[in-house]
Amino acid sequence: MRQTEHDRDENTLPATMPAYEAVRELTRLEPPEQAEIFEQIPEQQATAIFGLLDKGVQQQLVDRLPLAQVVRLVESLEPDDRAQLLEELPAPTARKLLSNLSPHERQMTAQLLGFPEESVGRIMTPEFLALGPGLTVAQALEKIRREGQAAETIYVLPLLDDDHHLLGLVYLKDLVLAPCDQLVDELADTMVRPLPALEDQEVAARLIQMTDTLAAPVVDKEGRLLGLVTVDDAMDVLDREVEEDLAWAGGSEPLARPYFSVSALRLARTRVIWLLALALAAILTVNVLSAFEATLEAVISLALFIPLLIDTGGNCGAQSATTLMRAMSVGEIGPQDLLRVLGRECLVGLLLGAMLAAIGVIPLWLFVGGPVALVVALTLIVICSLAATAGAAVPVLADRIGIDPAVASAPFITTLIDAAGLLAYFLIARAILF
Amino acid sequence: MRQTEHDRDENTLPATMPAYEAVRELTRLEPPEQAEIFEQIPEQQATAIFGLLDKGVQQQLVDRLPLAQVVRLVESLEPDDRAQLLEELPAPTARKLLSNLSPHERQMTAQLLGFPEESVGRIMTPEFLALGPGLTVAQALEKIRREGQAAETIYVLPLLDDDHHLLGLVYLKDLVLAPCDQLVDELADTMVRPLPALEDQEVAARLIQMTDTLAAPVVDKEGRLLGLVTVDDAMDVLDREVEEDLAWAGGSEPLARPYFSVSALRLARTRVIWLLALALAAILTVNVLSAFEATLEAVISLALFIPLLIDTGGNCGAQSATTLMRAMSVGEIGPQDLLRVLGRECLVGLLLGAMLAAIGVIPLWLFVGGPVALVVALTLIVICSLAATAGAAVPVLADRIGIDPAVASAPFITTLIDAAGLLAYFLIARAILF
Repeated sequence: MRQTEHDRDENTLPATMPAYEAVRELTRLEPPEQAEIFEQIPEQQATAIFGLLDKGVQQQLVDRLPLAQVVRLVESLEPDDRAQLLEELPAPTARKLLSNLSPHERQMTAQLLGFPEESVGRIMTPEFLALGPGLTVAQALEKIRREGQAAETIYVLPLLDDDHHLLGLVYLKDLVLAPCDQLVDELADTMVRPLPALEDQEVAARLIQMTDTLAAPVVDKEGRLLGLVTVDDAMDVLDREVEEDLAWAGGSEPLARPYFSVSALRLARTRVIWLLALALAAILTVNVLSAFEATLEAVISLALFIPLLIDTGGNCGAQSATTLMRAMSVGEIGPQDLLRVLGRECLVGLLLGAMLAAIGVIPLWLFVGGPVALVVALTLIVICSLAATAGAAVPVLADRIGIDPAVASAPFITTLIDAAGLLAYFLIARAILF
Repeated sequence: MRQTEHDRDENTLPATMPAYEAVRELTRLEPPEQAEIFEQIPEQQATAIFGLLDKGVQQQLVDRLPLAQVVRLVESLEPDDRAQLLEELPAPTARKLLSNLSPHERQMTAQLLGFPEESVGRIMTPEFLALGPGLTVAQALEKIRREGQAAETIYVLPLLDDDHHLLGLVYLKDLVLAPCDQLVDELADTMVRPLPALEDQEVAARLIQMTDTLAAPVVDKEGRLLGLVTVDDAMDVLDREVEEDLAWAGGSEPLARPYFSVSALRLARTRVIWLLALALAAILTVNVLSAFEATLEAVISLALFIPLLIDTGGNCGAQSATTLMRAMSVGEIGPQDLLRVLGRECLVGLLLGAMLAAIGVIPLWLFVGGPVALVVALTLIVICSLAATAGAAVPVLADRIGIDPAVASAPFITTLIDAAGLLAYFLIARAILF
């Protein structure tokens, strides 16, 4: 089914193509072409496709399609998806679109946009269907049949008291399986802990994933229900987090849009700042080396092992940094575990360095002689311990001071420990060789 | 709520603790303690908690708890979760458990285990509730009320003909909202493309995520329905993939179990092979440098920039590798895009190198003089182009020959291009300085 734009004959998508395949096709195109093809799609199909598109692609289409069509498409989105799209758009465009929405949709969107970015409030749907205590199953099902059409989900139905306080959740599954005259109060799951609207999106998404639920309730400070976060939104949140983690792990900013819809110049722009920052940090290594230029001149064979040693340190640091980042992002490790983690990772680094040194010392001896071999072997042990400890410390400390631990990732740690590793190398060399 | 094992007074969890919090607590302990605490939990609570635990922790508990309890716990798992746990266990343990299951559960588990690892067949549930054509909504709801208790999900109901061929999917939501006398045939979603049982799990999970569905149908080669893949299993698959991608990006094997439940020695074991392999590859850099030892001896200041240059190359390669890996894992890029991707990344690398060279050349000039500054600046351009291209080529090529692109990640690419970068550096130096 996949085809590139080169072998597509006409600028249109087949009418029978399922929406997700159309999404895949559009995602592979560059922005002007995306808009051109999207305009040819019949209204109803276009609405379904637009809803499944990546925020980045939606944004590119908003920039290029006629206003009337954009308003209809944006109106058709679910409130939380709409809020997320509007927050990405330039303020004038967002305001224009907002003022063109129907009053009901406008009000809901404005409510969601009132919550901070990255908060659960932004991704909840306010279109839930609530049940009251004292209803029988038959009455509840009748109410759902009457009013359920407008809700984003009816699989999870909050049970509310008269003040909109959450008493529990009723699952449609249980309603359908229960006898008609049972009271919904008896079916409600009361063990649910509601999410505060200001809670972090990732925490909420992890909770939904862990508990295998379809929707989690969101409440205000007084415990009144504001909306539900559904599992599809939780999946999208986790996926965005993953994209960010991976991008940081590679030392660049997340693209937040499909690869082919970003020009080469823009790709370079998203990467150059980080590359430059890391290169500036690497100037430290130049300083260390120039401080030891005389040592280097006296024993030139020391230079041969510089790349090997700093690569190994970098790799060792990257291993522990990515392991720790992952453990932190799934909640296995918190800031309070700093010392326990540092102790473990220092030991792991020591073990790794000792293994590498033991394996390498004989071949090194044969290649450059005993003294330099000893220097390199000892440096391996020091560098690995240092790297594993730093690789563990940086993400945990970053989290402690409120920075995304993923930012403090492999490239950053590599650069950080390179200078320290070189310093250790030349200090050991001086002590042994002179 | 979080507490470490140091400030927990008794070896037990409060009975009122929600299952997911108990899971969090258990995950932070080391294996012997996990079992000790788990044994104290009342049967019903223990069952709920066991179902939410990570496969790795389940496995550790199986090793340590009494057989009778283990059999009850394993019996209580959903068929797909059970199959995944059994596949992780040593064969004798798995066989013993399997033979202790009730015949019905044993048969279902054996069926799932008959599908290859990583295939959709392994994660589907065979406990679905099917509808036949010609039923009215009222009849369908009645059937669900009678038989729905045994199904893993009743939110998605496959519509099957007499030969078990999939005609479409009926969503419980539509059934509940529709008039009682409507035919289910009219409600069925017939645009669904079923997943072949041998399809890759990640592909299936991405499809579920993209289409925001709660369950996707799985069929055999003849198009007969075998089971459903539910959204919670899709989330777990994506999460495992992420863990793997991140681990490879850091140059180590995925732990596949909580951080604190793995000993320091085992952590070192999971990392040492990769570290050693990368160190062996880095020996190439020693060779390149020793080939140019005379050049280095003549102009010792060339040595000062070795770490800076190889770090920058490594960072540049990591940036493009992680960007490409991500784009490939979400399906934006396929093997057929190799040339298009290489062209773009080579251009991006050229732009990045040129920017860094332009920024660096004046300070370098002042620090080490014109000729060496020119050598370093030119090398930056060559290294960045090389690194970005290699960073893009390796994951795409790996995918083409059937290796997980994530394996061919940053550390691997860094080491690969270090030697090439050093070669370029000294060739440029020879051409300009001598």
